[in-house]
Amino acid sequence: MNRSAGDAEALQKASGNQPKTARGEATRKAILSAAERVIGARGYNDASIGHITSEAGVAQGTFYIYFNTKEQVFSELVLEMGRLVRHTIADATLGIDDRLEAEKAGLTAFLEFVCAHPDLYRIVQEALFVDPQAYREYYQTFAAGYRSGLIAAEQAGQISPGDAEIRAWALMGIGRALGEQLVVFKTGRPIPELVAGAYDLIANGIKP
Amino acid sequence: MNRSAGDAEALQKASGNQPKTARGEATRKAILSAAERVIGARGYNDASIGHITSEAGVAQGTFYIYFNTKEQVFSELVLEMGRLVRHTIADATLGIDDRLEAEKAGLTAFLEFVCAHPDLYRIVQEALFVDPQAYREYYQTFAAGYRSGLIAAEQAGQISPGDAEIRAWALMGIGRALGEQLVVFKTGRPIPELVAGAYDLIANGIKP
Repeated sequence: MNRSAGDAEALQKASGNQPKTARGEATRKAILSAAERVIGARGYNDASIGHITSEAGVAQGTFYIYFNTKEQVFSELVLEMGRLVRHTIADATLGIDDRLEAEKAGLTAFLEFVCAHPDLYRIVQEALFVDPQAYREYYQTFAAGYRSGLIAAEQAGQISPGDAEIRAWALMGIGRALGEQLVVFKTGRPIPELVAGAYDLIANGIKP
Repeated sequence: MNRSAGDAEALQKASGNQPKTARGEATRKAILSAAERVIGARGYNDASIGHITSEAGVAQGTFYIYFNTKEQVFSELVLEMGRLVRHTIADATLGIDDRLEAEKAGLTAFLEFVCAHPDLYRIVQEALFVDPQAYREYYQTFAAGYRSGLIAAEQAGQISPGDAEIRAWALMGIGRALGEQLVVFKTGRPIPELVAGAYDLIANGIKP
């Protein structure tokens, strides 16, 4: 198999037809944002391309300039939300030199993102059934970056020595669980309380 | 509304027709176990009652002695898996007086349960779409017990003071993330390594 042809095909499958102009990019983002709301509300099976273009306020033909199928817009939505989450956390922790402070700021930013994107959980969770590859990519890309950050922090003496891979999974698991409390279980506890409680566990553990 | 009639109806909806004999209970469990494998492999939409009875080796009519619909057997499966997880952890931690040791034993037992029930994640995750009430009950029942255990441990001086509710969610999030690495992402790391890494975080935190 021709590897670069395969790569190009995989890229095409994942990302659709990349727009060449800023206006095209804005339309593509508007379609993705509409897909987020429509698929979040109706679920993948009951959402149609017509629902998405109607929500986005574009003609159905416009959809096909950017995406080929409903499956493709869904996959791209999952990956786009992953990118958005990572960029949001990166922005929130930019310039914070201490890793423990960055953990706190990153968790806060993540939970705020979750509240601004209440359908994130349904969409990513549905990806396990609709597009398992996108589901894996969503979490594994995040975990790889998290792990690198923890290794650098350990080398800088900012955190104790430990297994960076397991820690990355565990810390992501904490964030995921707290975000789910906010938007799925709707527990109603304020983000600063959640972050303070989790940060105490992350920094100090529960040993007396 | 007649409250006890409502309760009886809710119980009936959730648990199906409770068998009165040990043999009936065994058949009911066999149907649930078959449903676990069939729905885990095919997903809820593509699984039929015929697939489940065939996998269980019982006549289709037998299914209707215990359950009324596919939705009902699914809901009961989610709740049954929740009970199994909780009982497995309770058994594994029975007689362990120290909470930190119980955390370690409980996490180990949970991860072993996950490996023995590799479809647990798909099934519980699909419940968010098929039966959100069962999804909530699965996690909230678990969280309530976890929280009580942490409060008792704090009162006994076995763990540091802290927000038991947030800690329960965070610790469940760690377990869920590590289990997912085993059966969804198939990372292949041995359970004792996962538990050792997570335990160090849970007990001591990552502050240097």
